[in-house]
Amino acid sequence: MIPKYLAEWSRDALLKPGQRPNLKRLPPALDLPDDIKKKQGREVLLTLSHELADLQRKLFAEKKRKVLIVMQGMDTSGKDGTIRHVFRLVNPSGVHVAAFNRPTSLELSYDYMWRVHKQVPRRGEIVIFDRSHYEDIVTVRVNDLMPPAVWKKRFKHINDFEEMLADEGVTIIKIFLHIDRETQRERLQSRLDQPNKHWKFEDSDLVARARWNEYMKAYEDVLERCNARHAPWYIIPSNTKWVRNLMVAGILVKQLNSLKMRYPDADFDPEQITINP
Amino acid sequence: MIPKYLAEWSRDALLKPGQRPNLKRLPPALDLPDDIKKKQGREVLLTLSHELADLQRKLFAEKKRKVLIVMQGMDTSGKDGTIRHVFRLVNPSGVHVAAFNRPTSLELSYDYMWRVHKQVPRRGEIVIFDRSHYEDIVTVRVNDLMPPAVWKKRFKHINDFEEMLADEGVTIIKIFLHIDRETQRERLQSRLDQPNKHWKFEDSDLVARARWNEYMKAYEDVLERCNARHAPWYIIPSNTKWVRNLMVAGILVKQLNSLKMRYPDADFDPEQITINP
Repeated sequence: MIPKYLAEWSRDALLKPGQRPNLKRLPPALDLPDDIKKKQGREVLLTLSHELADLQRKLFAEKKRKVLIVMQGMDTSGKDGTIRHVFRLVNPSGVHVAAFNRPTSLELSYDYMWRVHKQVPRRGEIVIFDRSHYEDIVTVRVNDLMPPAVWKKRFKHINDFEEMLADEGVTIIKIFLHIDRETQRERLQSRLDQPNKHWKFEDSDLVARARWNEYMKAYEDVLERCNARHAPWYIIPSNTKWVRNLMVAGILVKQLNSLKMRYPDADFDPEQITINP
Repeated sequence: MIPKYLAEWSRDALLKPGQRPNLKRLPPALDLPDDIKKKQGREVLLTLSHELADLQRKLFAEKKRKVLIVMQGMDTSGKDGTIRHVFRLVNPSGVHVAAFNRPTSLELSYDYMWRVHKQVPRRGEIVIFDRSHYEDIVTVRVNDLMPPAVWKKRFKHINDFEEMLADEGVTIIKIFLHIDRETQRERLQSRLDQPNKHWKFEDSDLVARARWNEYMKAYEDVLERCNARHAPWYIIPSNTKWVRNLMVAGILVKQLNSLKMRYPDADFDPEQITINP
């Protein structure tokens, strides 16, 4: 059961095809009505996590659909934390997280889609992309890793690729975790303040942070130009972690429910089978 | 914290190198003392799951060790259920479950280790094999899929392969879930009785069941002959699900703790870094 307020938030988060978001003006936190509290949100998340676990089980049993969840966002926007909280009750056998970090030299010796295509979901599987082919436009562009003539062609490649996947039975849900610069500052600082989190801190985080505005512009372009009914973007206000988790869980439950999956019928008559002692 | 009784159970479950188990005589359920109850077991499992989640995080941060957990057992012995319960709090990004079902025609066109080697853990990763290369001896042998001259050589292959992995920094933990015929009968029957579980039922389950004794013999051989200090087998009495989960969780926590992992030191001075607003 998705509460009404959550259904509304999700509807607002969905980016309509053709629409261009203005990330600078888009609020990274919701105005929460007084009666919606973190504690209540936690309970709803628990219920949704159980539903998600049931839906995954049905997906796996049915072995017809494939589900791809793409997670994008700036450093510290919470890609990893979202995955951890939303999928905590889901059977790890049926979910595969594919992280696309800096490509290796082997990966770079292929076209950029090669390593991506290898990780798409099979029937009955949920795959979560922690970063994705979208880095091959956004990061490449902002850091000038390739000339514009190269990355500009990639909008179409990605649209074509996602269309092919959708035609072949992949349900695609794309999530952009939206935070503001100040929240990133706090989260980076907190990594510096906790010795157990130093390993998460990289110089490159600061380099990317220094180019915040270019990143926002590059994201606005992919959000606008690579957005289709069969592969929609959701922009999640992510300054507040529990709201972010709740929204992502609500969207996934709603989308998976809409697939109307069923446990497959037996191709045998259970009454006719005797199991010998 | 691992309770004393659990530490003792785990010690008993460890198969000593060179030892041959007698699966027919080995009890598939523990004699539980009166003061150890399911409810208490659930609480301990929760604590252990939290510890396991912390250990995984450290493993991932440290990026030095690789962990491979091999799960074997007859149909309905609970491989999937164990994975689900023991790893429920662990970040799905850091755990990969590789299921080795009937090989595809592509896989069969290679040596049997090809598909296995592709799935071994990298640094910082936990991989769980749901079935494994052991099927390439046990199932192949019992069902006469290859002549003895072929599968008999595989004991050595597997020992050599596991030794190489251990030398290269892989911690290997092998788990055999031990149930008896009667428990399997009950569990198969319950799959037949619940329409939502019909998809789990396969004719081949009954074929395997009819060859129970041959399977036990084949398992005794691999348990005896492919057992090393660097790749030990644990035989888990698995008739009682909560005891099974508790024991597996206890063994994993103990083994991962013994790696003495640490969060890596920063290669920078956090005090010297300012994050611009």
